[in-house]
Amino acid sequence: MANPQHPSGEDSLIARYFKPLATDPGAFGLVDDAAILKSSGEDIVVTTDAVVEGVHYLADDPPDTIARKALRVNLSDLAAKGATPAGFVLTLALRTKDDGWLKPFADALGEDARSFACPLLGGDTVSTPGPQMISITAFGRVQSGRMVGRTGAMAGDRIIVTGTIGDAALGLDVLKGGAAAKALASDPAARDILVARYRIPQPRNVLAQAVRDYASAAMDVSDGLAGDLAKLCAASGVSATIDTVSVPLSAPTAGLVARGAVGIEALLSGGDDYELLCTLPEARCADLIAAGRAAGVAVTAIGTIVPGNEAPRFLDGAGGELVLKRLSYSHF
Amino acid sequence: MANPQHPSGEDSLIARYFKPLATDPGAFGLVDDAAILKSSGEDIVVTTDAVVEGVHYLADDPPDTIARKALRVNLSDLAAKGATPAGFVLTLALRTKDDGWLKPFADALGEDARSFACPLLGGDTVSTPGPQMISITAFGRVQSGRMVGRTGAMAGDRIIVTGTIGDAALGLDVLKGGAAAKALASDPAARDILVARYRIPQPRNVLAQAVRDYASAAMDVSDGLAGDLAKLCAASGVSATIDTVSVPLSAPTAGLVARGAVGIEALLSGGDDYELLCTLPEARCADLIAAGRAAGVAVTAIGTIVPGNEAPRFLDGAGGELVLKRLSYSHF
Repeated sequence: MANPQHPSGEDSLIARYFKPLATDPGAFGLVDDAAILKSSGEDIVVTTDAVVEGVHYLADDPPDTIARKALRVNLSDLAAKGATPAGFVLTLALRTKDDGWLKPFADALGEDARSFACPLLGGDTVSTPGPQMISITAFGRVQSGRMVGRTGAMAGDRIIVTGTIGDAALGLDVLKGGAAAKALASDPAARDILVARYRIPQPRNVLAQAVRDYASAAMDVSDGLAGDLAKLCAASGVSATIDTVSVPLSAPTAGLVARGAVGIEALLSGGDDYELLCTLPEARCADLIAAGRAAGVAVTAIGTIVPGNEAPRFLDGAGGELVLKRLSYSHF
Repeated sequence: MANPQHPSGEDSLIARYFKPLATDPGAFGLVDDAAILKSSGEDIVVTTDAVVEGVHYLADDPPDTIARKALRVNLSDLAAKGATPAGFVLTLALRTKDDGWLKPFADALGEDARSFACPLLGGDTVSTPGPQMISITAFGRVQSGRMVGRTGAMAGDRIIVTGTIGDAALGLDVLKGGAAAKALASDPAARDILVARYRIPQPRNVLAQAVRDYASAAMDVSDGLAGDLAKLCAASGVSATIDTVSVPLSAPTAGLVARGAVGIEALLSGGDDYELLCTLPEARCADLIAAGRAAGVAVTAIGTIVPGNEAPRFLDGAGGELVLKRLSYSHF
């Protein structure tokens, strides 16, 4: 909404920081109230996720990481659905028009928009007296009828996750000065790795086509592996058995577990992983693992879908069952 | 995200209040992280608008009117673009999970979704320690290439608005106990009319096809007629002359102006009208006015597009020019 004649505060803010991101012709350079998403008969996949200061990110997180996280949590949903990013709209609720915050925010958002080929199409900037909030609605394209849902998991399917689990929860714990911070007091490199995993998720859009080609059901792990798997199982009308020692851990996280500084339960129910959780027939597993190898993303089989409607069971190395006190993070 | 096995707070909230609104098959009953918007080659029009407690609505506004306003400000954008509503996604940032607030909110949202044929496709519910906020991204469909933009106004085009201008700004003034409240101390019916115009906009979706068929440029009036017209003119590279006495006023508003209780400038720069502002060739005016008559919506010609790039001029009844101290509402 750039208006050279009578620039209001909101208009000049949008023109200065966000117009450069609106590279798609459907964004009309942000001079209109609406954008156009072209379609030639594919399905448009729509996902929306908001992050709130003090809830989903910390007030003193760097603005560039806040921007990347806000977009990437949505990109992660598109990846899990097998969709190719097509663009996004942004609602930004700001307390103040602080150039020192907005410039790195917009620059980083623009970098991610380019590198994930997901251009800014439009948005709304509003003032708030409360915590800042960023709400993004992202769009993807998928061949008609080919979106990967949560309901297709079948008994016998293998369960895979990408990357490593639990790092982000430990990164938040480091930032909050919790047990992980104390245990890593003399290991700044490990702290940095975990904090980066919390602040800047790595959505697995590079595997979207493999998800579409091979997965029977998929979602991203955002609220904790245990709780998210329970949701996928419930939607599919199945249960699951997880071989807990197979759950992939990063080196810093595995070190903390080995030293007894954190328990595996906290990793399984921690949030903010933004890894893919897929089910697929055993016969397709090698293909998905190969696709991961080609893309440089670890793909690890962690268990099996079984009949039933109980909560998924997490078995320890001796075949005993872990009892999880909570399955996932909930804001209420 | 209903999960009968392990309902988290957020999941049960969504299942209870919002699943009944997710009537479109593309919403998957809100059990997935993503929705599907089907397309058969039309353009998808995307618009996003957020409302913040204490900024766009008052903390003690009834929850049903807040819900309607949050959706309708987006429907108004779709109408102005000539698009047919297709659905919306909702981000709801809540301080508490208060059933007494959520039930009427969700019920009213569902009623509007049905009556405007704009179903809930998905959303995100987050907690906030600050003011509540509702961000909606709405989708419309329009034949490829037929979205009505802001850039097509031509010198000689007539300028029309729907409905009446200034009521909502006065309604807010009534709620805040301002000059309008004092002037209408003994006229509760007039106060109610103005307050309702502030709380529950009447988006003109019934005229979307006429906008598409006849308008050279269009937008909705949300931040004040004067400022919004200036934006449209700037986008089109033209100026405008407005015959201020032609600007349509409701009976309560006209009464306040006649008594000198409010000035016309406050009405022209007040926000929240959510009426359509269109430009169109003189030869199409009768068609648009007839379409308005058929739909029961007043359509009034208020001026003419002229060459130039100055701010639009507002002429009084004697041909003099009003000098507006501000053109529109800005949050910064």
